[in-house]
Amino acid sequence: MTQCKLYFASDYMEGAHPNILRRLVETNLEHTTGYGCDEFTLSAKERVRKACACPDAAVHFLVGGTQTNATTIAAILRSYQGVVSVDSGHVTAHEAGAIEYCGHKVLTLPGKTGKLAADQIGAYLEAFHADGKREHSVMPGIVYLSQPTEYGTLYSLAELTAISETCRRFRIPLYVDGARLAYALASPENDASLADLARLCDAFYIGGTKCGAFCGEAVVVPDPEFIAHFFTIIKQHGALMAKGRFLGLQFDELFKDDLYMHIGESAVRYAGLIQSELQKIGRRFLFHSPTNQTFLIVDDSELAPLAENVEFGFWEKYDETRSVIRFATSWATTLQDVEALIALMKE
Amino acid sequence: MTQCKLYFASDYMEGAHPNILRRLVETNLEHTTGYGCDEFTLSAKERVRKACACPDAAVHFLVGGTQTNATTIAAILRSYQGVVSVDSGHVTAHEAGAIEYCGHKVLTLPGKTGKLAADQIGAYLEAFHADGKREHSVMPGIVYLSQPTEYGTLYSLAELTAISETCRRFRIPLYVDGARLAYALASPENDASLADLARLCDAFYIGGTKCGAFCGEAVVVPDPEFIAHFFTIIKQHGALMAKGRFLGLQFDELFKDDLYMHIGESAVRYAGLIQSELQKIGRRFLFHSPTNQTFLIVDDSELAPLAENVEFGFWEKYDETRSVIRFATSWATTLQDVEALIALMKE
Amino acid sequence: MTQCKLYFASDYMEGAHPNILRRLVETNLEHTTGYGCDEFTLSAKERVRKACACPDAAVHFLVGGTQTNATTIAAILRSYQGVVSVDSGHVTAHEAGAIEYCGHKVLTLPGKTGKLAADQIGAYLEAFHADGKREHSVMPGIVYLSQPTEYGTLYSLAELTAISETCRRFRIPLYVDGARLAYALASPENDASLADLARLCDAFYIGGTKCGAFCGEAVVVPDPEFIAHFFTIIKQHGALMAKGRFLGLQFDELFKDDLYMHIGESAVRYAGLIQSELQKIGRRFLFHSPTNQTFLIVDDSELAPLAENVEFGFWEKYDETRSVIRFATSWATTLQDVEALIALMKE
Amino acid sequence: MTQCKLYFASDYMEGAHPNILRRLVETNLEHTTGYGCDEFTLSAKERVRKACACPDAAVHFLVGGTQTNATTIAAILRSYQGVVSVDSGHVTAHEAGAIEYCGHKVLTLPGKTGKLAADQIGAYLEAFHADGKREHSVMPGIVYLSQPTEYGTLYSLAELTAISETCRRFRIPLYVDGARLAYALASPENDASLADLARLCDAFYIGGTKCGAFCGEAVVVPDPEFIAHFFTIIKQHGALMAKGRFLGLQFDELFKDDLYMHIGESAVRYAGLIQSELQKIGRRFLFHSPTNQTFLIVDDSELAPLAENVEFGFWEKYDETRSVIRFATSWATTLQDVEALIALMKE
Repeated sequence: MTQCKLYFASDYMEGAHPNILRRLVETNLEHTTGYGCDEFTLSAKERVRKACACPDAAVHFLVGGTQTNATTIAAILRSYQGVVSVDSGHVTAHEAGAIEYCGHKVLTLPGKTGKLAADQIGAYLEAFHADGKREHSVMPGIVYLSQPTEYGTLYSLAELTAISETCRRFRIPLYVDGARLAYALASPENDASLADLARLCDAFYIGGTKCGAFCGEAVVVPDPEFIAHFFTIIKQHGALMAKGRFLGLQFDELFKDDLYMHIGESAVRYAGLIQSELQKIGRRFLFHSPTNQTFLIVDDSELAPLAENVEFGFWEKYDETRSVIRFATSWATTLQDVEALIALMKE
Repeated sequence: MTQCKLYFASDYMEGAHPNILRRLVETNLEHTTGYGCDEFTLSAKERVRKACACPDAAVHFLVGGTQTNATTIAAILRSYQGVVSVDSGHVTAHEAGAIEYCGHKVLTLPGKTGKLAADQIGAYLEAFHADGKREHSVMPGIVYLSQPTEYGTLYSLAELTAISETCRRFRIPLYVDGARLAYALASPENDASLADLARLCDAFYIGGTKCGAFCGEAVVVPDPEFIAHFFTIIKQHGALMAKGRFLGLQFDELFKDDLYMHIGESAVRYAGLIQSELQKIGRRFLFHSPTNQTFLIVDDSELAPLAENVEFGFWEKYDETRSVIRFATSWATTLQDVEALIALMKE
Repeated sequence: MTQCKLYFASDYMEGAHPNILRRLVETNLEHTTGYGCDEFTLSAKERVRKACACPDAAVHFLVGGTQTNATTIAAILRSYQGVVSVDSGHVTAHEAGAIEYCGHKVLTLPGKTGKLAADQIGAYLEAFHADGKREHSVMPGIVYLSQPTEYGTLYSLAELTAISETCRRFRIPLYVDGARLAYALASPENDASLADLARLCDAFYIGGTKCGAFCGEAVVVPDPEFIAHFFTIIKQHGALMAKGRFLGLQFDELFKDDLYMHIGESAVRYAGLIQSELQKIGRRFLFHSPTNQTFLIVDDSELAPLAENVEFGFWEKYDETRSVIRFATSWATTLQDVEALIALMKE
Repeated sequence: MTQCKLYFASDYMEGAHPNILRRLVETNLEHTTGYGCDEFTLSAKERVRKACACPDAAVHFLVGGTQTNATTIAAILRSYQGVVSVDSGHVTAHEAGAIEYCGHKVLTLPGKTGKLAADQIGAYLEAFHADGKREHSVMPGIVYLSQPTEYGTLYSLAELTAISETCRRFRIPLYVDGARLAYALASPENDASLADLARLCDAFYIGGTKCGAFCGEAVVVPDPEFIAHFFTIIKQHGALMAKGRFLGLQFDELFKDDLYMHIGESAVRYAGLIQSELQKIGRRFLFHSPTNQTFLIVDDSELAPLAENVEFGFWEKYDETRSVIRFATSWATTLQDVEALIALMKE
């Protein structure tokens, strides 16, 4: 690891935004009550509600993404229900069976560029309800999306609206995983705001870990009656922090002066720079990815030499002789490192 | 909350030890790999192993206590096994059913002063194995203790040794919850070291959240073969931090220059001061508690006035007219506040 | 086993009531649809509803008692809820952790003669709701009784009414395990009818296995909306019989011409005879048990000789030198065997 | 239902083989101990072991197929493991999430004619172990096959041997679901015996429900040490019958005088007759199915008229205008009904 010069493996490779660190230093010896009843947390909840234009929303702070997905999805589903996800969804591909450990099946649909379409969801739900043997099957009980997706792609507001309408027609809740939501919000191609999410979803989470915090994810439940006793459920899942203030403080900073709306901007700009510069030299990408991730197709023979100079993410085999690798930028990535990466790739 | 002057409700009411904060500031923009493969974490593991005199131990960092108990216990048990605990044990009384959510019964034995005895465990296990109907029952699969206990009491080295021998005789693993272990290690009445725990237990955890960290608990598994694929299990439980360095860094600081051995000293000394001073004015305690917690018996009529000036923990009803309350000191408690509390109680 | 002459170990030691067997023979090669949609099952459901004076009830047939308890309780509870049971309840003591395997804690209250009291339940629920830390605890989500209890004792109609009122006051469902319900219904001391149970409970089951069937338990849910998608839940628990007709047919026979109301009569009469005869020779019982079970206190030295001639149930140690054993009679027990047992005990 | 003349919807539409019924009548009032410790069960286990040429095997009798799969698979897997199955496998498609309810993911591979191939399994396992992120994923912990498959197709002895060798090379257990095993054993195209299964698998089950019993499935574990405490696990899953003799007796009859080896013969012959006769009139099948099931492609317009005269199974849509339906024969199907079905289809 130490011989690596450039770090593009993921967006959780640095500490936290300086504002968070400063506030931690300033408030360290203040006394607060535990379990998220402190004033940092109360203030953070209020700021998140305001940013979502959703003054009644319940807001809960959990620690990490897999935990947040498993806890929230399990809180919403009944035992006989499963979660509908694109086949590349984080809940099915990257969470070590956390959803199943909670007793639920992930019902996968094939995805293009990491996305589901409203039509596709509608056709699936229609077919399920038309099936005479449906009572012998896991019932779809939630639709799971991520914004941006695992491939860094975005749902447009029109797409989200159509999916939300489909879900409401079939009376199935819509849940959005926003682990990298700051990078969606910072993308020039994005037209779906936090308020849109709050209006269109039954629950979603605003990612902290990958977007400037040490850790922490904020679950927003626009209708606070939607999930009863969520506090106890969070505790039961081992996801309740005793020093809840530590999460509250971070989100209080992230949502002060709209920081969260802008924190992903440099990362998205740098990812765009990487893509446009590499395109100039004939590099190919898995597909257009307008947020902070770049999925590059490389010859397998390039992998080892590249790894000597860059930490990158190995994504998947592309074909017999080529692979897909990922460069992720973050709020902490510097232009200097981005330029060094581009130069290296041009050698 | 704001009108409260004195904070003795628990030991997780402040931030983190200044050394941790300083190191966070110094290292914030360093790049590291995720999921606990970074150098902070590797160093922390090495320091923990050294402090435990257990060079081969597997060490894993999780976020909080309930999560650590549920994850580790579930990792050890088979589906048909349960965890043996004193009836006041944290796993049965204070974790919102996290153990049961993982599919396991807590098999409770009555406790005096929060403790189990080797004889009692032996008699229970003997009776279980002698029972002709045992194959229709949950099998005891782990013995759970906490050091110090929920009541702040301590197991002596002799007691732990006897319990460990009993467990080994019946081939049942011994697991110790050390959420407040620093306060045990700092007690003049304690004679069981980290190395003793590593020698006598099959797994135990060293608490960070209540002992100077923002969050974090270090699970020590002396025989690394004892729990296979614990990394994946931790991930499945939503207990794996993407920015694992944040946990590693904290434990690296806590175990630098023996900080953890001493961090609880003032808290224990102050709890002793509270107890001796209150005893002088005829106050009674639930029982002698030699670590950082004081369990005081008060008239119910005292509760409301006291609550105006002190945040304390309501523990349980003592009898029709009296209650037990808890004053907890922490590494961050000041002598000034302790003296103010004593003065207040003497009014 | 073969040298045993007398069989009083339990009430599931013989086949099925002759009416059931005759009907099986008559209908063996008839074709029916699967999964309980057949006409035997539809007729049985109708008869059960009629016997319960509850024309809208949902009725489901499952295979065995542990399965029925686990499936029904899990269907009713949300993840953060547990089941309130007397400490000798079947769900906590004799089901190998089936409830916990489904993720739920059994919240035990101490019992006298195997029973809970309305006052006791009310006090417990009141204390729970008054507890400031209740959101950190498993929430009571169902009250579990058995009629008759594990000790063969009965709840009177007045007791059941009081418990039902308490449960409704606290908005917590009441569930009754009727594994041996036929022996309650046949007891001269009983004054609670099936219609009373249907009126007072949110769900209960009518036992078949111990009451004349090869297997099978009928779950009655007076308000059919109370448990959504119970069919799918039953299937998910592996409790749905493909040849559902086999369960339907048995209950159709048990509820033809009120057979179930009377099938336990001889067993209860014989248990009474055993008790009165043994009392005459100074034998002592654990307590008065007015159904088909007799709990006798014996010297430990009697156990081995007795076992040579009788299969009985070892229940528990009574004190250092004495034990409690159980003689169970069933619908199939003969007067001849009862008299032989009495004679043997009088030797 | 009553207006239907012909019953080909499934193979669980009738009662039990006459031998079973006769034995039930003969033994009804014999007294036996419970939970499968009776002499019927002991004899049945011995006969199953003999038929499998596996004198040390552990044999357990459970009630139904979904229950047997969920219980056995959960008994074998550790929490972080999943079950590898073809995408049409019963465990993933038809069990209402029973596997997931037990906490495990079904890892599906695409299948042709309902089967997996040794190469395919090997490539999958190899790729899993080569994946640097494998510790973040559910680990394959068992390979699940069914013989015959959901589509009535058969694994040859050579195919089973190759799969078994692959599994052993990767140290992953092999489990075979034999819900319809009698129809495999009766097929002229079959060359894999019970002894072969016992030699090649780590566990498998011999189906009773669909093969002549009222209910019951016999799990065979060739190495009895392979699953510890399976009795308790079965109880915990609600799958232990109190009157275990009822299952034991049925398998004792099914394995007396090799009945099970022949009980499927007429069904397989009749399915062959249906297929050859329908082929003569130009009917097309989904694929060749050499056991007791026929998967016929029909125009959607045929469905309703056909349903007036025949109970059949709707299987799946074939294309926009056609569907696949299933005719299942059973041990109880008569030649007369088969001829009537053929005549009807030829109209």
